Amino acid sequence: MARVYNFSAGPAVLPESVLMEAAAEMLDYKGTGMSVMEMSHRSKAYQKIIDTAEADLRELMGIPSNYKVLFLQGGASQQFAMIPMNLMKNKVADYIVTGVWAKKACAEAAMYGTANVIASSADKTFSYIPDCSDLPVSENADYVYICQNNTIYGTAFHELPNTKGKDLVADVSSCFLAEPVDVSKYGMIYGGVQKNIGPAGVVIAIIREDLITDDVLPGTPTMLRYKTHADNGSMYNTPPAYGIYICGKVFQWLKDMGGLEVMKQRNEKKAAVLYDFLDASRLFHGTVVKKDRSLMNAPFVTGDPEMDAKFVKAAEAAGFVNLKGHRSVGGMRASIYNAMPIEGVEKLVDFMARFEKEN
Amino acid sequence: MARVYNFSAGPAVLPESVLMEAAAEMLDYKGTGMSVMEMSHRSKAYQKIIDTAEADLRELMGIPSNYKVLFLQGGASQQFAMIPMNLMKNKVADYIVTGVWAKKACAEAAMYGTANVIASSADKTFSYIPDCSDLPVSENADYVYICQNNTIYGTAFHELPNTKGKDLVADVSSCFLAEPVDVSKYGMIYGGVQKNIGPAGVVIAIIREDLITDDVLPGTPTMLRYKTHADNGSMYNTPPAYGIYICGKVFQWLKDMGGLEVMKQRNEKKAAVLYDFLDASRLFHGTVVKKDRSLMNAPFVTGDPEMDAKFVKAAEAAGFVNLKGHRSVGGMRASIYNAMPIEGVEKLVDFMARFEKEN
Repeated sequence: MARVYNFSAGPAVLPESVLMEAAAEMLDYKGTGMSVMEMSHRSKAYQKIIDTAEADLRELMGIPSNYKVLFLQGGASQQFAMIPMNLMKNKVADYIVTGVWAKKACAEAAMYGTANVIASSADKTFSYIPDCSDLPVSENADYVYICQNNTIYGTAFHELPNTKGKDLVADVSSCFLAEPVDVSKYGMIYGGVQKNIGPAGVVIAIIREDLITDDVLPGTPTMLRYKTHADNGSMYNTPPAYGIYICGKVFQWLKDMGGLEVMKQRNEKKAAVLYDFLDASRLFHGTVVKKDRSLMNAPFVTGDPEMDAKFVKAAEAAGFVNLKGHRSVGGMRASIYNAMPIEGVEKLVDFMARFEKEN
Repeated sequence: MARVYNFSAGPAVLPESVLMEAAAEMLDYKGTGMSVMEMSHRSKAYQKIIDTAEADLRELMGIPSNYKVLFLQGGASQQFAMIPMNLMKNKVADYIVTGVWAKKACAEAAMYGTANVIASSADKTFSYIPDCSDLPVSENADYVYICQNNTIYGTAFHELPNTKGKDLVADVSSCFLAEPVDVSKYGMIYGGVQKNIGPAGVVIAIIREDLITDDVLPGTPTMLRYKTHADNGSMYNTPPAYGIYICGKVFQWLKDMGGLEVMKQRNEKKAAVLYDFLDASRLFHGTVVKKDRSLMNAPFVTGDPEMDAKFVKAAEAAGFVNLKGHRSVGGMRASIYNAMPIEGVEKLVDFMARFEKEN
């Protein structure tokens, strides 16, 4: 068995120790005589798995007691509808569009009310984060929405927008648990887990309790109401039980690593290895305004699509896989989530340096 | 490692060989150097996994080419809304209520139009299937809805209702792939996979193509439109990739076993072992009208709740777990899905016979 260095944007690399534990427990979870996949979600053994996962996540993120943690399904794309259906009391929301995902979220919200684009970086292919210190926030906006880390473009909000008192809703799919976060600054934080936490098929939503009400838009399906899930401990119906179990193992791994402050330092160190190389390289260039660079996703190009393709192919042969950039921007992208070890980034940079010399 | 006999109603027992394969491939799927959990859903390796899963399911069920196979999320409960949102063109549908799940489906549909209960077995705690040979099907009904196997009560439709030409929509969560099925008799067959196929978090929907249109109710979220998923090969966004991979392994296992005709024979044999014992027992009694008994879920009682509790406890100590009946009906229930070997049922019956003698 030879593991590769997997730079996939998502689903993405998971800690090897988590996978080893999951494999070891596959036929018999802690003496229960069954796999977690085979376990009734109403059993004591499973209740402990989901309770421990939630408690560990609360500890890692310092989630205040007036926030609910929900384990949901359907990906961020389903949240694009659930958010307006549940939160658009005045039928007005403001969106800051820093990429295709925020744009899709905004378009979906427009089905349910007025979704204003109050800032955008579409003018420069989403290669920067707009100044959000004094935006024209709508007086009756139910919330202000951001995608905090833009997987495709490699940008991130390093400072939260000034929402002028409105609740902030943030999609953190690609920066979930990458660094400490002050949850109290958000009305809602949510993300698909398949980039930085676990297997695809689980969404974690952290929502301030007062935002979870029965006052939803008419026609909102029972399963698309946050209250349905909040009132039932994320078990109104069978949850994506195995995925939550893996997420719980990753939370435990993060605690063992030292928590989110330590992860931030590691992630900054890893990103610096790559960005410092890109800034010095004569062949490779980063595509993002420096101050807005993501810690998680680093896109880069040579400027020559043929050379890009040659590099991606050579890298793959050397065990550095999934470096091809998103089809909408081309070039390369290295996603260096929590579970990517610094050796992976160092070896990639060594390989890039050799490739540069030879080309 | 000691595996138990797991009679859980769902999530439920999976074939041991499938779990062993999954464990062996956890860190390196077929030389890719990564787990399927870590794999981009846009990769060639994953595309092959989902394509093979669909092809094997089509082969097993003999799905006609004018039916789409969709891998979805949110459980049957989300389908309760998706079905009316997508199919209620006339805003009228007829429901046959044979248990709590059909009742919930009907209540959800009533949010979107007129949902008529055209037959029910609520009068006798859902212990039988009503005569559905000549029901008052609504002239403008968009579909007739059934829950084909009722997990909680242990009943099953062994003959499909006469829908008088209307499209039949069936929830087959707890009898999926238990026996051959003539797909062409349905407009739509769907089910959560967590009972007879795989881990919770995947729904499979098999829908006749002409029912998949853009003509959905206003306000239907993008992710709740069948067309969204049909147009994108179930990958509009990241699918529950690992769950689908396990489902694919179970399809392969079913093919190796000889297909659904063989499974039917096995399931009939297994059920007969249990039902024959119940019919002869002086302590234990089945709770369902004989002709409507499910092949998958067999509820039974002693008539004395204390004796029931004593039995469940003794059985668990002997390695027969999850035999407690659903909280709404009490007593016991043995779910004997495809992956439960006949030895499990034979040993359970031996244990029941010993318990009967001693009590």
